[in-house]
Amino acid sequence: MADHSAPPACKYFNLTYPLPFVAHVEINRPDKMNAFKEEMWHELPPLFTHLSTSPSTRAIILSGAGPKAFTTGLDVQEASQNSILGPNPDQSRPVPDGARTATRLRRHVDAFQACISSIERCEKPVVAAIHGWCLGLGVDISVCCDVRICARETRFAVKEVDIGLAADIGTLSRLPKVVRSGSWVKDVCLSARDFGAEEAEKVGFVSWVGKNGGKEEVVKEALRWAEVVVGKSPVAVQGTKEVLNWSWNRSVEDGLRYTSVWNSAMLQSEDTREAMMSGITKRKPRFAKL
Amino acid sequence: MADHSAPPACKYFNLTYPLPFVAHVEINRPDKMNAFKEEMWHELPPLFTHLSTSPSTRAIILSGAGPKAFTTGLDVQEASQNSILGPNPDQSRPVPDGARTATRLRRHVDAFQACISSIERCEKPVVAAIHGWCLGLGVDISVCCDVRICARETRFAVKEVDIGLAADIGTLSRLPKVVRSGSWVKDVCLSARDFGAEEAEKVGFVSWVGKNGGKEEVVKEALRWAEVVVGKSPVAVQGTKEVLNWSWNRSVEDGLRYTSVWNSAMLQSEDTREAMMSGITKRKPRFAKL
Amino acid sequence: MADHSAPPACKYFNLTYPLPFVAHVEINRPDKMNAFKEEMWHELPPLFTHLSTSPSTRAIILSGAGPKAFTTGLDVQEASQNSILGPNPDQSRPVPDGARTATRLRRHVDAFQACISSIERCEKPVVAAIHGWCLGLGVDISVCCDVRICARETRFAVKEVDIGLAADIGTLSRLPKVVRSGSWVKDVCLSARDFGAEEAEKVGFVSWVGKNGGKEEVVKEALRWAEVVVGKSPVAVQGTKEVLNWSWNRSVEDGLRYTSVWNSAMLQSEDTREAMMSGITKRKPRFAKL
Amino acid sequence: MADHSAPPACKYFNLTYPLPFVAHVEINRPDKMNAFKEEMWHELPPLFTHLSTSPSTRAIILSGAGPKAFTTGLDVQEASQNSILGPNPDQSRPVPDGARTATRLRRHVDAFQACISSIERCEKPVVAAIHGWCLGLGVDISVCCDVRICARETRFAVKEVDIGLAADIGTLSRLPKVVRSGSWVKDVCLSARDFGAEEAEKVGFVSWVGKNGGKEEVVKEALRWAEVVVGKSPVAVQGTKEVLNWSWNRSVEDGLRYTSVWNSAMLQSEDTREAMMSGITKRKPRFAKL
Amino acid sequence: MADHSAPPACKYFNLTYPLPFVAHVEINRPDKMNAFKEEMWHELPPLFTHLSTSPSTRAIILSGAGPKAFTTGLDVQEASQNSILGPNPDQSRPVPDGARTATRLRRHVDAFQACISSIERCEKPVVAAIHGWCLGLGVDISVCCDVRICARETRFAVKEVDIGLAADIGTLSRLPKVVRSGSWVKDVCLSARDFGAEEAEKVGFVSWVGKNGGKEEVVKEALRWAEVVVGKSPVAVQGTKEVLNWSWNRSVEDGLRYTSVWNSAMLQSEDTREAMMSGITKRKPRFAKL
Amino acid sequence: MADHSAPPACKYFNLTYPLPFVAHVEINRPDKMNAFKEEMWHELPPLFTHLSTSPSTRAIILSGAGPKAFTTGLDVQEASQNSILGPNPDQSRPVPDGARTATRLRRHVDAFQACISSIERCEKPVVAAIHGWCLGLGVDISVCCDVRICARETRFAVKEVDIGLAADIGTLSRLPKVVRSGSWVKDVCLSARDFGAEEAEKVGFVSWVGKNGGKEEVVKEALRWAEVVVGKSPVAVQGTKEVLNWSWNRSVEDGLRYTSVWNSAMLQSEDTREAMMSGITKRKPRFAKL
Repeated sequence: MADHSAPPACKYFNLTYPLPFVAHVEINRPDKMNAFKEEMWHELPPLFTHLSTSPSTRAIILSGAGPKAFTTGLDVQEASQNSILGPNPDQSRPVPDGARTATRLRRHVDAFQACISSIERCEKPVVAAIHGWCLGLGVDISVCCDVRICARETRFAVKEVDIGLAADIGTLSRLPKVVRSGSWVKDVCLSARDFGAEEAEKVGFVSWVGKNGGKEEVVKEALRWAEVVVGKSPVAVQGTKEVLNWSWNRSVEDGLRYTSVWNSAMLQSEDTREAMMSGITKRKPRFAKL
Repeated sequence: MADHSAPPACKYFNLTYPLPFVAHVEINRPDKMNAFKEEMWHELPPLFTHLSTSPSTRAIILSGAGPKAFTTGLDVQEASQNSILGPNPDQSRPVPDGARTATRLRRHVDAFQACISSIERCEKPVVAAIHGWCLGLGVDISVCCDVRICARETRFAVKEVDIGLAADIGTLSRLPKVVRSGSWVKDVCLSARDFGAEEAEKVGFVSWVGKNGGKEEVVKEALRWAEVVVGKSPVAVQGTKEVLNWSWNRSVEDGLRYTSVWNSAMLQSEDTREAMMSGITKRKPRFAKL
Repeated sequence: MADHSAPPACKYFNLTYPLPFVAHVEINRPDKMNAFKEEMWHELPPLFTHLSTSPSTRAIILSGAGPKAFTTGLDVQEASQNSILGPNPDQSRPVPDGARTATRLRRHVDAFQACISSIERCEKPVVAAIHGWCLGLGVDISVCCDVRICARETRFAVKEVDIGLAADIGTLSRLPKVVRSGSWVKDVCLSARDFGAEEAEKVGFVSWVGKNGGKEEVVKEALRWAEVVVGKSPVAVQGTKEVLNWSWNRSVEDGLRYTSVWNSAMLQSEDTREAMMSGITKRKPRFAKL
Repeated sequence: MADHSAPPACKYFNLTYPLPFVAHVEINRPDKMNAFKEEMWHELPPLFTHLSTSPSTRAIILSGAGPKAFTTGLDVQEASQNSILGPNPDQSRPVPDGARTATRLRRHVDAFQACISSIERCEKPVVAAIHGWCLGLGVDISVCCDVRICARETRFAVKEVDIGLAADIGTLSRLPKVVRSGSWVKDVCLSARDFGAEEAEKVGFVSWVGKNGGKEEVVKEALRWAEVVVGKSPVAVQGTKEVLNWSWNRSVEDGLRYTSVWNSAMLQSEDTREAMMSGITKRKPRFAKL
Repeated sequence: MADHSAPPACKYFNLTYPLPFVAHVEINRPDKMNAFKEEMWHELPPLFTHLSTSPSTRAIILSGAGPKAFTTGLDVQEASQNSILGPNPDQSRPVPDGARTATRLRRHVDAFQACISSIERCEKPVVAAIHGWCLGLGVDISVCCDVRICARETRFAVKEVDIGLAADIGTLSRLPKVVRSGSWVKDVCLSARDFGAEEAEKVGFVSWVGKNGGKEEVVKEALRWAEVVVGKSPVAVQGTKEVLNWSWNRSVEDGLRYTSVWNSAMLQSEDTREAMMSGITKRKPRFAKL
Repeated sequence: MADHSAPPACKYFNLTYPLPFVAHVEINRPDKMNAFKEEMWHELPPLFTHLSTSPSTRAIILSGAGPKAFTTGLDVQEASQNSILGPNPDQSRPVPDGARTATRLRRHVDAFQACISSIERCEKPVVAAIHGWCLGLGVDISVCCDVRICARETRFAVKEVDIGLAADIGTLSRLPKVVRSGSWVKDVCLSARDFGAEEAEKVGFVSWVGKNGGKEEVVKEALRWAEVVVGKSPVAVQGTKEVLNWSWNRSVEDGLRYTSVWNSAMLQSEDTREAMMSGITKRKPRFAKL
């Protein structure tokens, strides 16, 4: 079980608390437009596991540092030199056969997926505040978040087929579940074409687009949204996220039952009374830590 | 098996037949903006079970009495006094432990859910004609209906987190299946913000919005829609609802097979011949009761 | 395993290659607005099985011949004379009981479904370029395609309830998975009303609508789209289609795992290197056959 | 929600409490070897819903009255006269078409299934103490119970194919889940042959067989087993049944998660402390009602 | 839809009718102990599709010709020379990359699996009468059958790991579903050890073992079993197989519903009346063809 | 991704290699009959993750140190003092409400489950060599293993209901999937009665029981079994485990497809050729590391 102490040290992610209970995680490699090297994704699980159980955190904003990009995705240059897809570093060893190479590749992809999925598994709501470029791995990451909002100029692309790959860090598994047009999902995944904020909103990929443009506006909106959410009962908010995530992939019957079992404990909170009382007395409710 | 006799007596729901085969169910507690007390939801299963098998009913309209609301949801005042969430009525009994309280709460939620689900289980199409406020339990109820249409001024909210609860009567299990802009669903469920008719239509929650405003217009449209549907073969209409509901949660393969087994009996109706003949002779088809 | 030789001879489908690697399949019964007789759907499995494994094919366009229709669906006149729903051809034989009739009907529907599903099972992307009427079976067919685009004047209808049937060749199983405005899906399936291109785009059924109108424009756009796709790595494109189709109906976890196992082999292609190198040297990549 | 008052009056089932917290339900139509008429199965839901929530009941024994049979299944004579499969009672009405007949039959089977399933849905463990004949519907009923034990002379048969039917009240859905010798399940269901206690135990259908023969011995063993179970914490016992039933049909992952959510409330009982303390002080534990 | 005419010509399978309605399929390559070459498995789909819909067939026996084996599985010698796993036949062509080789291999395995699965998809019960060796592919085939019986001397082995493969034609997918001693399944699949008839019966893999030994005894028992089955209503028998197969992999709820929909048509047969009448008048029932 | 270097240091588990490629993990707290304290289960994930990818390990034996027990399960004394179920350590803090307590408990159970599941997720076969007592958590652990064998005197019990709990670390989710009698599973889980080796073998829980008694015999058999397995191709063995685990919970169709995709890479190993060649030349095959 995660301890509730200090957050893990991260080299590539800034963690700040702009408001009480609101954590702001910033992808922090602006000189490379926040492109991901391997050590970056390994920083995600300890960070989001910490936030998942930290009582001081009730909502999380995820954004990219610098003016140009949420993230341009995988740092292809670094990947081609160091990673599993690059040239064989040790020419003296025999070439492994196709099965052994496949085992190495599968373990690599499994581990990579698990790092990114740590955002989805976080018990607190995560809102992605996207600006500039959001390419490839950027889409994989943003579909792990609960809510996506973006600046007017944002450009997205499911870029993987352009480098000879099927997207394998989560976009193909999650995008059909969060966007409502099958035809559009197939279009953007098979053609790798980029699309803008307006189109992203029309198909339901993002639920808010900035009016004026620029990163500040979208981060400000994310803060506003998060402030609303952290003012609610954390028992209610975290239960809502959990029950939605469970129900998403399952039958209505399984969703209903899980909800009633979950709430058999959660309805024993003091928060309902507190919420009602504060409504009557017109004061701001205060909820115990969770 | 349900008998085909008289409808059950209801205190809080009006049942009328404005057109042949079209049942109109009106939530009838207008002085409280149709807020639900416990005895109200217990009236739903006998009513919708009756309609489900009544040969005189081929489509159902569900609306709210009075000018102000479809329903504002749970009657919180009543709930806080009488229900399971209210104060312990019998101070002389010992306080049950967390497990025993949970059992009581779970059974309560299970029973509540089952009452509302009786609308979804009804074999006939149900169109929700929504106006005014549609809050909390109102959303739980409307996502059980097949088609949702609303007046221009309608305001919706998944209100539960505002009173310290995760929505547990069906919204969290069903909303992701009927809307599927993942970002929007998370937004409205986690923030409890209200939204209007235009937004509801944009994300696909409702499929029609009145032009002029007011309740009469939306009920009239519901009647028009229902009149179209009851003019079709009831074998075809009820089979379409059943097969859609089955397929919604299941794989394409399971959906296809269920369809072919279902239709192995249903293609033995006289309705296809009747539909074709009436088309040729340009008369209105007449279908036997079902 | 399918052989890679000549395509099967088809009487009712034209197969041409307007561009390298781009197959164009045209439903070819324009004098009957491309209405389907039984022998037509039996031509689909050999044709699409051939295209599925033909190394000369990387993307497929499906359209209807003639100016009037993609297809008006089942040829009801032919069906009423020859098919399983028509009059008993042999009056001398005893009338089979309801169970035996059901067995005959179920086998017929199963076989019909399997023919249409061969489009979905094809390993290559299929884009439906729709114009004019797209009714009944036309919708069943188009929801088997990956991408749907249409001309401005196109009229669609899930027409089956009008002839006393629940749509049983796939629309009811697939439409909720590619559109996901539950209210709209129920509306058009239960009422059989027709709808136009603009509405089809709004709900996400099609992902592109022609500006000027006419069939040429939509076929041209399909060609443009296919040309983009066939310029990508076929390993990446076919993997993207396969992984999307698998994930669509399954949990995120099952989708992620299937992706990593699939890619454990597919990342062993030469295509990634080729794609990267061509990017650096600014030449068009060339990918080996698949 | 069920009230906790008096049990419903039953004409065909005896309810006694031979031991504290142990309910004994006896199928009571011994002159017809406990064959089921329609009104009998309609008595099951109110009876088992009552037992499910009655705090005075912690385990249930189900057996058949009289020396000859647990039950010989459906009362075919009664069924052929009165039921849905018998002759058309009202010759003056027109014969309904195959689709309408199918609707009537499906509703009948659905309702019949729901009555029998009420045993499975009961929150308390149910042990079937079987003797003599256990045929057809007797097998449907016994596979709804948690534990099956039988007398040495018991004869079982999945009898339905002998009267021209596929068993439709639950045997075909549940037997493969509780036995899982696929070959044996198919053998007895397809051939309708009867089998004895020894064979039933070998394949795992029953978990105990009497040594000496006779009904008294098996009821005595059921009492002994029930006495053990009602001496345990009811929170633990009912949780064990619920979690096993949930996990049976689902993935290990879904089972594990449901368990942890269920227990997040149930571990808040006083029973663990009571169980541990009574162990230390060597006294019999006493658990509060549930 | 399959036609009901003459059976397809087979080179490696004998088809005889030793009793009315009982088809006997014999694997016929006794000089090679019925080892499978590629052309053999391609003969299975047309043969079993024919039997599936042939009204003259109500039960099928599958056995191996000659005294030595049901089948020793894949003909490894032939496979190593001609098949996809053998040496590259055309040294002049470039070696395809790992992804392209994988595509070729996957299509090969998919096609191979589909051929063997045609036995499982057959609508009529299939009993495997096994003697001598039953190795590798022999186990894949026998787990597709409904009932397995064997001679006393039979030796089985899931042999694939001995030649460097995970069994991929169905054993690993089906064996856990028909045996379910998890420990035993893992033991025999991971160690490739052989096991005899007694052990096969103890774990439930076969449901009958010959007393005296020899092939004649087991074929005779299969005939006896088939004779019993073809004397029952074919509507009941085929419905029982179908509903069992559907329910095996699915939840109890889905099984129950499929059963009631299936039977809504099948209860409209004449067979129930015929079965009851023949019981009363003590004559053998006669059922119409199906 | 796990590195392939030295194994993690463990205080409570001995790791030895009695044979090449055969790892022996011994639960090492013999003075407490190998009862588990919390720090013990936290040692499992690093240990089994290491073994999962270590090329020097191809099979794993799990046994308990000392003569008395595999493990008696949770160290209840330690649990009651230190753990989450014990007395509130800090009396000065306010008592959290039922919802907050539930959150703490759920996270604890989730984490505990994840530790034990690391055995199941290990890519190499694990055989549990069980002797003496195997209680509570001991059963949770052993059902995570692939193969279970035991000494003649072994006594098992699903002990949890005896201390007021439903087993929540995996027994209830996994036992129904590895044992073939529903009645027996419910019996031992609801009554907490203990059972011996003979009964465990009869129901399929273990697949081998020692003849003479004692721990040495069962460890020796485990070694013999492991020696057989590590002599096979590791590509074949690990693929067999993976495909069996995947298929166990899923439909036959999903199992078959996963198998063909998995093997599309794995059939590209050199091991098949090596296995065949060594068979022909009658030498022991040598397989490259994996």
